Amino acid sequence: MALIVQKYGGTVAGSPKRIRDIAERVIATQEMGYQVVVVMSAMEGETDRLLGLAKSMAGTPDGREQDVLLSAGEQVSVAMLALAIKGMGYKVRSWLGHQIRILTDNDFGRARIIQVGSEDLKRSLKRGDIAVVAGFQGIDRDGNITTLGRGGSDTTAVALASALKAEFCEIYTQVDGIYTADPKLCPRAKKLDRVSYEEMMEMISLGVGAMHINAVDLAMKGNVPLHLRSGFTPWEGTKVIKEEKDSDVVVSRVTSDRNQARITITRVPDKPGLAAKIFTPLVKANIIVDMIVQTNSEKGTYTDVSFTVPKDGYEKAESLIKEIIPKIDSGGVSCDPEIAKVSIIGRGMRTRTGIAAKMFQVLANEGINIEMISTSEITISVVVREKYASKVVRVLHDAFIEKQGNL
Amino acid sequence: MALIVQKYGGTVAGSPKRIRDIAERVIATQEMGYQVVVVMSAMEGETDRLLGLAKSMAGTPDGREQDVLLSAGEQVSVAMLALAIKGMGYKVRSWLGHQIRILTDNDFGRARIIQVGSEDLKRSLKRGDIAVVAGFQGIDRDGNITTLGRGGSDTTAVALASALKAEFCEIYTQVDGIYTADPKLCPRAKKLDRVSYEEMMEMISLGVGAMHINAVDLAMKGNVPLHLRSGFTPWEGTKVIKEEKDSDVVVSRVTSDRNQARITITRVPDKPGLAAKIFTPLVKANIIVDMIVQTNSEKGTYTDVSFTVPKDGYEKAESLIKEIIPKIDSGGVSCDPEIAKVSIIGRGMRTRTGIAAKMFQVLANEGINIEMISTSEITISVVVREKYASKVVRVLHDAFIEKQGNL
Repeated sequence: MALIVQKYGGTVAGSPKRIRDIAERVIATQEMGYQVVVVMSAMEGETDRLLGLAKSMAGTPDGREQDVLLSAGEQVSVAMLALAIKGMGYKVRSWLGHQIRILTDNDFGRARIIQVGSEDLKRSLKRGDIAVVAGFQGIDRDGNITTLGRGGSDTTAVALASALKAEFCEIYTQVDGIYTADPKLCPRAKKLDRVSYEEMMEMISLGVGAMHINAVDLAMKGNVPLHLRSGFTPWEGTKVIKEEKDSDVVVSRVTSDRNQARITITRVPDKPGLAAKIFTPLVKANIIVDMIVQTNSEKGTYTDVSFTVPKDGYEKAESLIKEIIPKIDSGGVSCDPEIAKVSIIGRGMRTRTGIAAKMFQVLANEGINIEMISTSEITISVVVREKYASKVVRVLHDAFIEKQGNL
Repeated sequence: MALIVQKYGGTVAGSPKRIRDIAERVIATQEMGYQVVVVMSAMEGETDRLLGLAKSMAGTPDGREQDVLLSAGEQVSVAMLALAIKGMGYKVRSWLGHQIRILTDNDFGRARIIQVGSEDLKRSLKRGDIAVVAGFQGIDRDGNITTLGRGGSDTTAVALASALKAEFCEIYTQVDGIYTADPKLCPRAKKLDRVSYEEMMEMISLGVGAMHINAVDLAMKGNVPLHLRSGFTPWEGTKVIKEEKDSDVVVSRVTSDRNQARITITRVPDKPGLAAKIFTPLVKANIIVDMIVQTNSEKGTYTDVSFTVPKDGYEKAESLIKEIIPKIDSGGVSCDPEIAKVSIIGRGMRTRTGIAAKMFQVLANEGINIEMISTSEITISVVVREKYASKVVRVLHDAFIEKQGNL
């Protein structure tokens, strides 16, 4: 019998009423002839409430004990869903991390799954039970409760789908799928029927909120088909699947990020160890550096180094860089928070050439200056003036998606 | 090394601030040279909140799943206390029912403890850890989570104290011990230093709220000395211990219960099976019958039967009795809600005679009519007009406790 794993996020499970709605959807899925494994997140806001309780106890909460506290959130939501399903007259059983034996390492707060015990679960499913599994939690080899970190319930769902060879792992959130661009910026954006794992991971790393990137990576490794759907509508969402060889999609998504600032260090003597001297202090201060561009230079001459950091971290970054200016003997530092990064993502870039050139031409035609460029295998990102961000998204969407008939 | 079990009730653990106070008391106990095992209830109101969530999911919540939900309450409080103790720089470890292996039957919602696994716990204590154990919860042989019912944390504490041979099992609540009478009714009531297990159980069954009667019974069987103390003051409370042979205490407590009503059935033909016919319908309707008095009669003649029920159930009881009046061919039924039951409890009654006679004389001297009497091994209860209840408590306290120099 085919099996489906369904994971419901905290917003979808945000109230008793919504949990009863989930129960109805789960039952409908079983009645379509599937074995159903449901993975639950904590109810919306609950994990933050529990984190607040932990912080009220100790400035730096102990990892082991904080995990005992946090895992109570999912325990409540699985019990509630199981109670609702049972109350509707169906066979059901809730499973906690220690009952299903989701074995993890003991890196409390961000443990990694080592193995998923599935034999008891399979027996229960065969008896006709709906399985309701607590996401986000596991146990280590000593029986300590662990949690998998933010987005951990996605990982639980994918790990179970992989172990149970599920037909699909459905991820229910408040959004109904992945669009070709943010519909707020680009009204003609359309929902994608499917994207590849690699595209999904690029999109997530460029700020498209859908699920946790580690879970997508795990799905790719286990070849688990994902289906990102809305928990509030019956419509199909976006499937995340293995890349099709004969796809004619070049660009799947145009995305923008205004939450960046650029820092430029000018006239730095170009010597070995330069980058380490610049970036180590930023890493130590937990400032995430995104794009890094170093102008071409010959050894022994001078170079300019530009990089982007999150907007709310740029003043801190600037002052850290100012401290090291004397050590690296540079000309100076300048900072520009009024930028945006716009990216195009598409699996077709692997095989098609000329995409970057076309992108630059489109922007040139609009008179928009490109201030930084970086590329990866399936992504091209440019930095432009922040005020042009929405316009750039629209013209790129028009050129690469609407005119290509990819909708 | 001597070991102490401390159990903290929900009110004592009612807020983050109060849990930090508990942490300080626990640490102070360890610093006095004890191994310390702490049993935590859920924070005040939490169990009721979780029960409300269960009821919002299903009219009659499934027992197994409701226990998964309810046990989250103690999971939160043990983690919080462990976080607080750790934050204060002490070694600590929280234990859930499945981690300590508190094995129970599978009577969900009111499971009974079969066995307590204590080996891992002992090793942890030897390493110098403070142990913080979730009360109220266990697991059955199949790994299902169970709960022990209201007052279950008391039972957890006593079971652990018995298994670990604790020097004392301290029960911390918002009251500072057991008094010779309710101080609100009888200002000269004094705190008792010690009572026997049997006295404690009689007092609890007569409405003295202190701990769960099953836990006292378990303590008596395991000869675990209890110490009922306030979680808000440093003073000693009341110890509940094995009866001392040479005790000169006759009466330990005078107690009153105004929440009773009397129902009298008059002129019933006295035939075998009469009591069953009267009381079976009440039991089926979950009405608790307390005192039962049948007037002396010879077989084949008529008798009057009086009994007391909780005040809020008497109208229901009356209508049920009216239905059976024709079947038992009785004269009629009358009902009186304006009564109170006043009892004296004392281990000395086992060996002293004349206590009942003295009690009746004291009341006669005050001109108070006794309307019903019942006795057990260490208790004598009388029913009087409700308006005299406080006065009766005071005169009995004066006669049996103050004048005996038992304070």
